Amino acid sequence: MNRYAVFHAPDTPCCCPVSEDSLELRLRAARGELRRVEVLYESKYVFHESRRRAKMRLSYSTELYDWFTVTLKAEDTRFAYIFRLYGDDGAWYYSEDGVTESYDYKKGYYNFFQYPYINSSDVQRPVAWMEKAFFYQIFVDRFRQGSGDKDFVNLSWGDVPKPKSLAGGDLDGVREKLDYLKGFGVNAIYLTPVFYAPSNHKYDTWDYYTVDPRFGGNEALKRLVEAAHAKGVRIVLDGVFNHVGEGFAPFRDVEARGRDSEYFDWFIIRGDRPCREPLNYDVFASCAYMPKLNTSNPSVREYLCGVGTYYVREYGIDGWRLDVADEVSRGFWRDFRRAVKSANPQAVLIAENWHDASPSLRGDQFDGIMNYSVTKACLDYFAWGKLDGQHMAWKLSELLMRNSGPVNSMMLNLLDSHDTYRFLTEAHGDREALHAALSLIFMLPGAPCVFYGTEKYITGGYDPDCRRCMDWSDSPSAAALLRKLSKIPRGGEPEISCVDGMLAVRRGKYALYINRTARDARVGGTVVPAMSHRLLKGERDL
Amino acid sequence: MNRYAVFHAPDTPCCCPVSEDSLELRLRAARGELRRVEVLYESKYVFHESRRRAKMRLSYSTELYDWFTVTLKAEDTRFAYIFRLYGDDGAWYYSEDGVTESYDYKKGYYNFFQYPYINSSDVQRPVAWMEKAFFYQIFVDRFRQGSGDKDFVNLSWGDVPKPKSLAGGDLDGVREKLDYLKGFGVNAIYLTPVFYAPSNHKYDTWDYYTVDPRFGGNEALKRLVEAAHAKGVRIVLDGVFNHVGEGFAPFRDVEARGRDSEYFDWFIIRGDRPCREPLNYDVFASCAYMPKLNTSNPSVREYLCGVGTYYVREYGIDGWRLDVADEVSRGFWRDFRRAVKSANPQAVLIAENWHDASPSLRGDQFDGIMNYSVTKACLDYFAWGKLDGQHMAWKLSELLMRNSGPVNSMMLNLLDSHDTYRFLTEAHGDREALHAALSLIFMLPGAPCVFYGTEKYITGGYDPDCRRCMDWSDSPSAAALLRKLSKIPRGGEPEISCVDGMLAVRRGKYALYINRTARDARVGGTVVPAMSHRLLKGERDL
Repeated sequence: MNRYAVFHAPDTPCCCPVSEDSLELRLRAARGELRRVEVLYESKYVFHESRRRAKMRLSYSTELYDWFTVTLKAEDTRFAYIFRLYGDDGAWYYSEDGVTESYDYKKGYYNFFQYPYINSSDVQRPVAWMEKAFFYQIFVDRFRQGSGDKDFVNLSWGDVPKPKSLAGGDLDGVREKLDYLKGFGVNAIYLTPVFYAPSNHKYDTWDYYTVDPRFGGNEALKRLVEAAHAKGVRIVLDGVFNHVGEGFAPFRDVEARGRDSEYFDWFIIRGDRPCREPLNYDVFASCAYMPKLNTSNPSVREYLCGVGTYYVREYGIDGWRLDVADEVSRGFWRDFRRAVKSANPQAVLIAENWHDASPSLRGDQFDGIMNYSVTKACLDYFAWGKLDGQHMAWKLSELLMRNSGPVNSMMLNLLDSHDTYRFLTEAHGDREALHAALSLIFMLPGAPCVFYGTEKYITGGYDPDCRRCMDWSDSPSAAALLRKLSKIPRGGEPEISCVDGMLAVRRGKYALYINRTARDARVGGTVVPAMSHRLLKGERDL
Repeated sequence: MNRYAVFHAPDTPCCCPVSEDSLELRLRAARGELRRVEVLYESKYVFHESRRRAKMRLSYSTELYDWFTVTLKAEDTRFAYIFRLYGDDGAWYYSEDGVTESYDYKKGYYNFFQYPYINSSDVQRPVAWMEKAFFYQIFVDRFRQGSGDKDFVNLSWGDVPKPKSLAGGDLDGVREKLDYLKGFGVNAIYLTPVFYAPSNHKYDTWDYYTVDPRFGGNEALKRLVEAAHAKGVRIVLDGVFNHVGEGFAPFRDVEARGRDSEYFDWFIIRGDRPCREPLNYDVFASCAYMPKLNTSNPSVREYLCGVGTYYVREYGIDGWRLDVADEVSRGFWRDFRRAVKSANPQAVLIAENWHDASPSLRGDQFDGIMNYSVTKACLDYFAWGKLDGQHMAWKLSELLMRNSGPVNSMMLNLLDSHDTYRFLTEAHGDREALHAALSLIFMLPGAPCVFYGTEKYITGGYDPDCRRCMDWSDSPSAAALLRKLSKIPRGGEPEISCVDGMLAVRRGKYALYINRTARDARVGGTVVPAMSHRLLKGERDL
């Protein structure tokens, strides 16, 4: 047997309490090698005397590995367990001491795997509404002009935007289009930042407690949240806590008074006062106008936790998307989570982290992340020709095995955002590829998140081109497809495979086949043409 | 190349910030397969344009794997990196997308590994004094009678103890023997529980705020800590927060008033009031007299955090050994750590967890654990004949690679405890095996912890036999050896290998050779007999 491939580790996504009496287990082995896997388990205090036995299911395969899973239930949740592996060439035990031919139960207390007790507060529970959420991401300045004075506008609606364009979109504009969004099933909106800042994107916050007047001010946010909630739509704000804008009062104070400022340690400055040339303080990317906050500093933590809870408590927002979360202190996020979840346990925390974030998704920091690994897989498969159907099935399976089931259900699955090329542009304008990719993210665990205008086939390259004005014309739309997709019941883990060269994803009664090969393929009696997809409910096309 | 074996994961012990500007990286590959490993790294914002290159060192080998390590330093700590692997059959890249023949730097922001920014509060820093700590574990009732009325004693000093024996050891007795302990290098004492409880072991706490009068009461604890600190000796108490004793006032209240008690939810009870037969509430093991605390309950958390900080603040204790920590809520430990570390950042938190605890050793819960995996390896090697020199070298290396360097330096390395057979008994009385094993735990990263009486060759089987009274006679002692071992400078990672069948551990100028084979071996010009060890400083025997 390939001992290099076998893997399990307790208190990780391989071993996750999903209720007060049940534990999800996963075991990895080399693909195609094991005929049968069982887990032998019992209360740790009697494991040396007797064990129960449960068969594990081959749930997902990747290019290299098979993943076997099972959910154990027990009244006494002080789980001790080892695995029994059956291959063509023999049978083995697998414990903390590795793969062995025999196992000494009498010494098991030294080397069994364990989840020693399920404490109810450690159960990984999804934020309930996330399990049915369909997100729509809105870049506020470009979505819809609502009310108010628009003297500042320097971009005619529909013209190609430049870095400093101001198109005049606002929160009343969003509110007026809630029915439009509900019309194709959207039930959650993620707004890019709304707090006072001079830029169009507002990732350079000057004042966390003032909603930008150009967006309609604090009252417009209140109106939007109330109207959205009345219609069953959730509102998630963009929390930019890695850095601020240069006009943020504490930074101004430090610029004026240097080390004498009480805010000096709110930033990370090499010298006695911030200097722009040469730059002597930490910033976001290389932007001198976006000084990085020192989130190791308890005063900064207290201040930002105050912001985090204020909008949850006072405005009723449904959570935060957390900008550049990966560059911010993990310790800060633990504090932030405690603060926000005590204001509202159902407020969601979704981090921007483009990479494997599983160490921050263990219940102490984020609920989910913007799932750019799924974005990358879709680009590799649909746009860049880097993955065929089989490798795409393996890749999606691999991504699901990075995190526990409850975490997977809180991932934000997106094809593009304000930080990427539009997906349709990457796919060379192939609308069928877009339709297939949209169908896919509705079939995966997690919440689909569609960037504004995707339904209107808006195209665009990198920032600012991906941030074009919303198209409110009667041009063709993918709304009907999205409406259909939004009605697919969620929950449960999909089967992911490759059938006749096609990527196949099945969940409950639903099945999605995507054919990206150069030749036609078949599902049942029906031909699936190349570069197309087929979505079935039971035996019938949806 | 064996792609099954290659492993790295960010924000784990494979990627650990050890100062504001340095990052420890590890990469795993199949043993013997790679000739050279490099890491290509740079600030994530310029990684697509240029990279620095650092060679990784083959630091540890296990039966299956080689572990390569390097510490990167950078002014801009927004690390992006990938690995370059060189084998006999070619060269590969390794990124979040796995092992590949080519790598597209332009798309790197999707799949490089990253540690996106070192925030100073996330740096893994050992508790400074732990890096030089030599612990002595004392089971108080059996160590030394100091002062006070001993009417309750039912065991003559030196007789074989029974489960309910009371021998009359106390805290003044410990205090009077501080010079004895210092005499062979001890500079830290871990006391089994001292709070008011009827048992001899006191793991059944009745009152957390009262030091047991049979141990001398609160004043005796104060005297002990003060005297110990005056002599440079640290005191760590045993915190039993998983469960209480049946006389704990809140449990008595629940027994009396059932659901009407405000403490009902402090416990986990199926029914309206606790009942012993049939047992309807959660307990430690199967002991009805030790009701489990519900550490998911915020009131319980607040109460226990109060206990945790009280003895740190008011008595100046140097930390807690945490009993049955693995069965307690992870969320509670996060709260407990915040509380205790804000009282004293140098207070150490050492959990009882006999297994791989690495998910709880990431800076949010414990500093270290009682390292029973090292205990097991020593038993396998010295006592049970399960490991030869080569396999022991591989096993010790494997255990070091479970956790980061800073965590390794805070592990409590022990050969036995009040919960095991005495090591000397497991080793069939072979004192040379004990000497060699003691030498080994002084050469490993982490703090050696010697169970009281080990130096006097006390033997004993399972509880209560391992808890015999301390031998204060003039019988032979290993004190001289321990004194010598305690002077070996600590810090730095050892080289671990197998030389001529012997386990070889080298650190700085020191080298330890342990020969457990049936035949003699040689180090330099000297013969090392079977079943013996040789400890060198430079070229000379220590």
